[in-house]
Order: sequence, then C-alpha cells, then structure tokens
Amino acid sequence: MNTTHLELKDIDGNLQKLRIKRLGIDTFQEPVIFLQKDSYICRSEGFSAFSRVRISNEKESIVATLNVVTSPIVTTDEIGLSEEAWFLLKASEGEYVTISHTKSVDSFSYVRGKLYNHKFNSKHLYSIVKDIVAGNYTNIHLSAFISACTANQMDIQEMSALTDAMVKTGKTLSWQNEIVMDKHCIGGLPGNRTTPIVVAIVSACGLIMPKTSSRAITSPAGTADTMEVLAPVNLDLATMRKVVEKEGGCIVWGGSVNMSPADDLLIKVERALDIDSEGLMVSSILSKKIAAGSTHVLIDIPVGPTAKARSIEFAKSLSTKLNEVSKNLNMNVRTIFTDGSQPVGKGIGPALEMSDVLSVIQNQPNCPQDLRERALLLAGEILEMGKVAKNNQGLALATQVLSSGKAWQKLQAICEAQGGIREVPIAKYQYEVKANRSGIVTFINNRFIAQLAKLAGAPHNKAAGIALHQHLGRQVNAGDLLFTIHSEAKGELQYALEFLKTHTSEFRIEDELV
Amino acid sequence: MNTTHLELKDIDGNLQKLRIKRLGIDTFQEPVIFLQKDSYICRSEGFSAFSRVRISNEKESIVATLNVVTSPIVTTDEIGLSEEAWFLLKASEGEYVTISHTKSVDSFSYVRGKLYNHKFNSKHLYSIVKDIVAGNYTNIHLSAFISACTANQMDIQEMSALTDAMVKTGKTLSWQNEIVMDKHCIGGLPGNRTTPIVVAIVSACGLIMPKTSSRAITSPAGTADTMEVLAPVNLDLATMRKVVEKEGGCIVWGGSVNMSPADDLLIKVERALDIDSEGLMVSSILSKKIAAGSTHVLIDIPVGPTAKARSIEFAKSLSTKLNEVSKNLNMNVRTIFTDGSQPVGKGIGPALEMSDVLSVIQNQPNCPQDLRERALLLAGEILEMGKVAKNNQGLALATQVLSSGKAWQKLQAICEAQGGIREVPIAKYQYEVKANRSGIVTFINNRFIAQLAKLAGAPHNKAAGIALHQHLGRQVNAGDLLFTIHSEAKGELQYALEFLKTHTSEFRIEDELV
Repeated sequence: MNTTHLELKDIDGNLQKLRIKRLGIDTFQEPVIFLQKDSYICRSEGFSAFSRVRISNEKESIVATLNVVTSPIVTTDEIGLSEEAWFLLKASEGEYVTISHTKSVDSFSYVRGKLYNHKFNSKHLYSIVKDIVAGNYTNIHLSAFISACTANQMDIQEMSALTDAMVKTGKTLSWQNEIVMDKHCIGGLPGNRTTPIVVAIVSACGLIMPKTSSRAITSPAGTADTMEVLAPVNLDLATMRKVVEKEGGCIVWGGSVNMSPADDLLIKVERALDIDSEGLMVSSILSKKIAAGSTHVLIDIPVGPTAKARSIEFAKSLSTKLNEVSKNLNMNVRTIFTDGSQPVGKGIGPALEMSDVLSVIQNQPNCPQDLRERALLLAGEILEMGKVAKNNQGLALATQVLSSGKAWQKLQAICEAQGGIREVPIAKYQYEVKANRSGIVTFINNRFIAQLAKLAGAPHNKAAGIALHQHLGRQVNAGDLLFTIHSEAKGELQYALEFLKTHTSEFRIEDELV
Repeated sequence: MNTTHLELKDIDGNLQKLRIKRLGIDTFQEPVIFLQKDSYICRSEGFSAFSRVRISNEKESIVATLNVVTSPIVTTDEIGLSEEAWFLLKASEGEYVTISHTKSVDSFSYVRGKLYNHKFNSKHLYSIVKDIVAGNYTNIHLSAFISACTANQMDIQEMSALTDAMVKTGKTLSWQNEIVMDKHCIGGLPGNRTTPIVVAIVSACGLIMPKTSSRAITSPAGTADTMEVLAPVNLDLATMRKVVEKEGGCIVWGGSVNMSPADDLLIKVERALDIDSEGLMVSSILSKKIAAGSTHVLIDIPVGPTAKARSIEFAKSLSTKLNEVSKNLNMNVRTIFTDGSQPVGKGIGPALEMSDVLSVIQNQPNCPQDLRERALLLAGEILEMGKVAKNNQGLALATQVLSSGKAWQKLQAICEAQGGIREVPIAKYQYEVKANRSGIVTFINNRFIAQLAKLAGAPHNKAAGIALHQHLGRQVNAGDLLFTIHSEAKGELQYALEFLKTHTSEFRIEDELV
C-alpha cells in the first residue's frame, strides 16, 4: 500500500496548478522542488520535507524531492524548481504545472532483496537502471543500491545484465567499420595522458579509433580537458563522424552524447561514498565502451599503493571480470597491468599534460620517457588486437610510426578536423619547490599531487597544475628543484602553498629506498 | 590524502567571510548552504554542488552540503542557510561566518569496512554515531550505513555497542526510583493506543512509569498526538518530573528531550528506504528506553501480514536479540507477541483513538473489547515485571484496577498534572462507507486504513481519521456500515474518497474466510 496516484485537487475539486519559478539552485543531479509551507497543497497533503512528488507540464513528467519553504522565495501558488528539475521538465518561466503523489519506486524492492543477499536477474536490473535514468531514485536510494552491490557482490551474470541495462537505457553510437578500437584506463595516476598519442599512432596505422573521453570530475584533468588545450572537443555527433571518416580517429568529449547515463548518476554517489565496487566498476567501464560502438578495447590497469588498483590481486580479479563480462556481451577486451606507483610524465593539469604529450609525439629529446613508453606499449597492444601488427610486433610498429613523425602528422590532422589546432598556454605564476635535504625520492603520493594541482586551479584554469621534476628513486641534493606549482591566480597559488605547508610527508626524500 | 583543513582566504590572504542569509528552506535534517556560483570562493575553490564544507561563527562550527546558486537568491558575498544549518549554527541574520574545506569523515571508513563484511568494534560504532549526531554524515552516508548493517547483519556485540553509543551521544533522564517501568510497541497497527490505559493502571498500582512518546512520522497518529487531544504533552523536563513525582506516571512528548538523537536521524532515512534492519531496530528501541532511564521494559510485537513483524519467525528473532542486547546493557526486557492482523479498536486518528481509550478506561459497555484486552494484557505483564503482582496474577490486578474506576481517576489526575484535561473534538465532515455485498470481512489492510486516515487529515487535524465499524471475520449484509471517514476539510475528505475509489480490494468482503 505504498502506491498512491492521486492528482491533487483544490477544495472545489479542480486540479491544483502551480506557477513555475526557476530558482537557479544546483542540487547535484537530484531534481528538487520548493513549495511554501502554507500552500494549500502542503497543508492538505501533509507533505513534508523530503517527500517525493510527481510534477508534470505538457511536455514532461518528472519525480522530484520536495523542500518545504517558510520564506518568501516562493509564494503559495508558486513552485520553485532547482536547475535539475528545470532542465528535466524542459520548463519555461511562468508556465503552470500539476503536482501529484508519486507511487513508490517498485524496482527498489529488488535492491532491498539484494541487501538480503538475493540475486538480481536481468529484469530486475533493467527496471532498476530504467528507474535510475528516469530520476526515480534519490541519492539515498542510489547509495543503498551501491552499498548492496558492494556488500553482496554481483556475479558475472549480474554484471553482464547490469552492463546491458546501462547500455540499453542510454544513447549508442554505431560505425560502419567491422573493427572499432578503443582504450580505457581505470585511472588514479596523475599525468597518465597517453590517449592523444595512442589515438594518433593507431589511426595512422589505418585502424578506426573514435575516442570519446570524459572531463575531470575529481581529478586535475580529464582527457577531454587536456585535448581541449590543443583543439575543440565539444563536437556534435555529425561532426565527430566526419572527423573519424576523414582521419580514422578523434578525441572528443563524450558528455554531449548521453551514453550510459545511469553510470554518470551512480559514479557521483560512489565518489561521495569513496566506494569502488568491483561489479559497478566493470559495468561502468564496459557499458560506456559498448555504447560508443567499440568492438576491441584495451584496458590499462595501473597498480600501485596510491592508485585505484592498490594490489595485483585486485587488478587480477578486475581483469578476470572484465574479460568474462565482455565475452558475454560480444566485445573483445584485453587488459594490461602497468606501474601505478607514481605520476606519469612531468605535467599534471591540462596544459602541462598536453606539453608532455607534444614533446613525446614531436620526438623531443628531453620528452618524458615514462609517458612515451606507456603510450607505445598501449598502442602496440591495440595494433595487435586490430590485426595490423602480428603478435609481438605491435610495439615495433608503434615505435616506428611515432619516431617517423607520422603520429604527430596524424594528431595535427585530427586537431584540424576537430576545428583547428591551438597554442598551449603558460601559467602567469610559477612557484618552485626545492629539496630541503639530500637523499633519494622514496615516496610520491598520487592523491597529494592531484590535490595540489587542483588547488592551484586545474582543470578550470587550463594552464594551472604541477610540473614534476623528480621521480621515485632519483638521487637529489638539497636545493634541487622538486616540482613547480603553476597558477593563473595569486589566491589559488596561495591555497596550494597553504596545503603544501600542512602536508610535508607526501613527497619524501630519505637516505635510502625503503 | 582526503584531509584538507584550509581556511579559505581571499587574494590578499585575508580570511574570507560571508554574510549569513536565512533562506527558510527545510532540507530534511541535512544542513545545506547556498553560495553564488560567481562568488570568489566557488570560483577559486572549484567548489561544486554537493561539496561538503565547514561553516563557523563565534558559537558553532558545522558541516553542511553546498548547493551552488546562479540566481540572485544570494549575492556573491552572502551565504544562504537552510533551516537545519540556521538552527545548528545558532545563527543570527546579518552575522558573518567563515567557510573552510572539511576533512573527510574518518569514521566512514568503518562503514566501508562493514560493507566488506568486517565487524564493527565498540570504538568504531561510537565514532560513527558521534559523527552522525554532529551532522558529519550526509543522507548518502546514512543510507550506506543502514545498508551495510542490513546486508552484513550485526551480531549481539555490535548491536550492544551501537545501542550504547546512541545513548551516550544524547541526553539521558534519571529517576530516584530503583524500578522505572516502560513499554514499547514496535508498531504497524493503526489504533493500537494502549499506552494511556496502561500507564494509568500501572501508576495507579504504585509503580513509576514516566512515559515519553513520539508524534506520528508516517502514521495517522502517534501516542503523543493522541494524548494531546486530552492534555498538554509538550512538557519540559522539570514539569515532567513534577507530574511523575505526584502521580507516578505521565504521557508526554519525548521530542523536546533529545534522547538518542542518532536514532532520529537514522529512522528518517530508513523510512525513505523502507528498510527495517533488525540490528538498527533493536538499537533504536533500546537506546530510547535506556536514555529515558527505564529499568524494566515490556515490548509488544504485533505479528500479522501487514504489520511490521510479518512472521512469527521475525518476531522470535527480534525478541531474542532484544533480550540479549538489553541483558548486556543491564536493562530488564520482556517481549510479548500479539495479534497484528488488523487495526485495534474502532478509531484511527488522534481524537478517534482517544475516544476509544476513554470508552475503555471509563468502562463503557460498548467499548472496543480488543483494545481493552490488549491494554489489560500489557498492564498485567508490567505489574508482574514490577513485582506488584505475583506471577500469573497481573492480569487480574490490572482488570480490577480498570473495572473499579481507579485507572480512570489516575488518568484524570495525570491530565490535570500535565496542564488540565480537554474535550475530545468531533470532525465537521463524516462520510459513511457501506458494504456493497453480503458476506464475511476477510481482509483489512492496515496500511490502507492508515493511508486513508492520513488523507482525511490525521494527525494534523486532530478530529480527522477513520472509525471502523467492522472487524475481520464479521458477517455483514449489503448496506451495512463498514467505516466512517472523519474530516475537518472538504478537500481532505475528497482526497480520501479518491483514494478509496482506486483501492477497492484492501477491505474485502467474501463468501467465506480464506
């Protein structure tokens, strides 16, 4: 008896209509509406804060969370909308909406079941994901779903069904080509910006690699942020297709395409909880790739104490699951374990990372060797997967394409096709951090470096970030340059310096390696 | 590296202060603040919706969730506060506050551990509960905690530690008397309003029973709402003590005392999830009773298909746990299973339930026998627990005290001591629902009856609710009165009738009992 479908009527039996007011409040993906406590609807319905209500105009019908208001932000015949509610309703100012009780979310009973260790079947998962995408789950419900999947882990069947449901409830891309290459890195390593190099090499070898990338959510730079330093990335689907038809590859922002939207909603709550549920990670990665129309995907799993995969056991278990689930869904996946013990390259932050990419792809003698080697390793694997190189010959082919300058030509062509190549900006303020003793660099905390880069202004100021001059195991003398903080604003530089002052053991120099 | 303790400073290194604006928005127990997207702090910090921030004035320091605002609700040097944030900060209009990053909630790592099936120890649970009470957990975190306790059930040690932590993080009452009686009903049965009768009988027999009760959260009436029909219940602690010293018992609203505040926060999220985790239920019940200073508690567990305890197995398991945990915490608990198959008495809603109570306690010949019998059963058990009746003689003593009119005298005395006895109101509108066929009443859905009473206006209109004229198994003829809907407003009566129209199988008349 949780289902009530009343349309709310006033005392004379007329449907109660409320005038929309856009409040310009960003409520983090969950649509919220605001009603006066004294309004007829609140009083007669006994609506209280946190009730879930259904709001309908002529175009849309959404479910939102109610905040009850006692100030004059809204009048008794108005309904205030958060930005999320406004966009979902496709509302216009002054428009009228009706409001009604919402029935309970039926699919949540499967989440309850999972909490009691029952298995999901594919119908359960499809209806859950459909409800999530429709906005019927509050963040509280999403948190319980994530917790249930973490506590009572999903098996391969459940992960496959969840991945499939995530794909089916979002947009998908399709390509004429039989083989479509892709790559993914499970993340956690600042500066690990191999994608532009890999895409350039792979497409220079004649394979198709239409790469959609994300912007930073909690990191100092996403691949899309970094690529945007060099060329436009906000391409619509038609333009993206033209780029791929012409050049074989692209590096664009995937956010406009709305692939696997359930994943985006879940990821934000997972981050708030700081929980990485293996099953959800598998479904998240694979659903985006399937939706992007990829047939062959190389997944890079960096392993290290402050990376996302903190142990080789975790990496192996994740790898097994990625392989089994992708097999169920007819996608060809190969995983590769890489060193995740420290940041990659020299730059952390969009422009500084792009500088590293350019120095590698332009074959500059002082380019970061670690980034170059990682990019070649990944490109070589992909060339083998795509059968343009024989087994164990991918690396040689990739190296040849990079060294010959063909990769750099291809990246320039892709940038032109995406809208034109750009100059890489340099930050206004630069602060050098030097060694206060001699010794060996024994520890660099990835998360510390990422946080410092963010405080300095990355990614919203493209030129901001950190340039690392030392790596693990390097012998340094007192006074040697350790890293430079780049910032576009004095205030942001100051935040970074304050943070540095209180975190002195995250970049360690000791007598010997421990 | 989740810990940042920066105080945010402006570009010249001054501490950034923002002027408070009370927005009058009720955000359901979670403090929320609102900052302009264009404010220096949002821009330089990269704060985005859903960040957690620490706000401090000279009196308090709280953690709140950030909503980013693009409309002129707040200016760039203002900080908007939700009602929860306003009250927690003890803020005053125009006051200035500082804002800083908040460190991550360390205790949440134990919740993560529980999700991976590690056990809680008492230190973990104490720090979790302390953080919950301090407002450091968002609803998302609370949902994960509840989910973790549901999926990986707590053992007796964990429940005991959680109960203890809940008591220690709230206010507690203490009484001079060695024996302090109490009762609790786990709920789910509309109209089951035995408390005023039981308190009157028990205190008339010389035992101490200082009863603190709750108001309705999702039901059509809480005991406090019902008692308020007859006498004031918003008593401060000093007045409550005087009542108990004079009369031995009281029935007051416990909400003003702030006992086991963590429980209040958890219960709201549990209700949003519709999850009854056994371990949390045990801790919730026992923590409130220990905090109230009770030494002997009778717990009534109604069992029935639409009650909270849907099976005898669940009731038995709950009973075992209540007994073991209360033993660990030196409280004397007895549980009793009662029939939970249908509403109790005739009235559902504050005034209608009080009418039932009065007809029982005044020994009116047509009083609801089921309510009378339940109240006598519970009172008898409590008299035995409190040693004023020998084993198996409690019921006889309770019956004698009720029949003799002593209980009614005591209830009147308690009402007078609480501030004076009141008249029970009668609703303006009454709508009779009659049988459309002859047969036997085979099913009454408790949740349907509760929902109907709420739509009719209970508990905010005290006189509103449902008067049931038939019970399970009763033979009725077409046209016989089944129940009457009582309402104070035409609109509310209409809501109830609309609901009735769409829910025709929740009160069933059939040829024979199935």
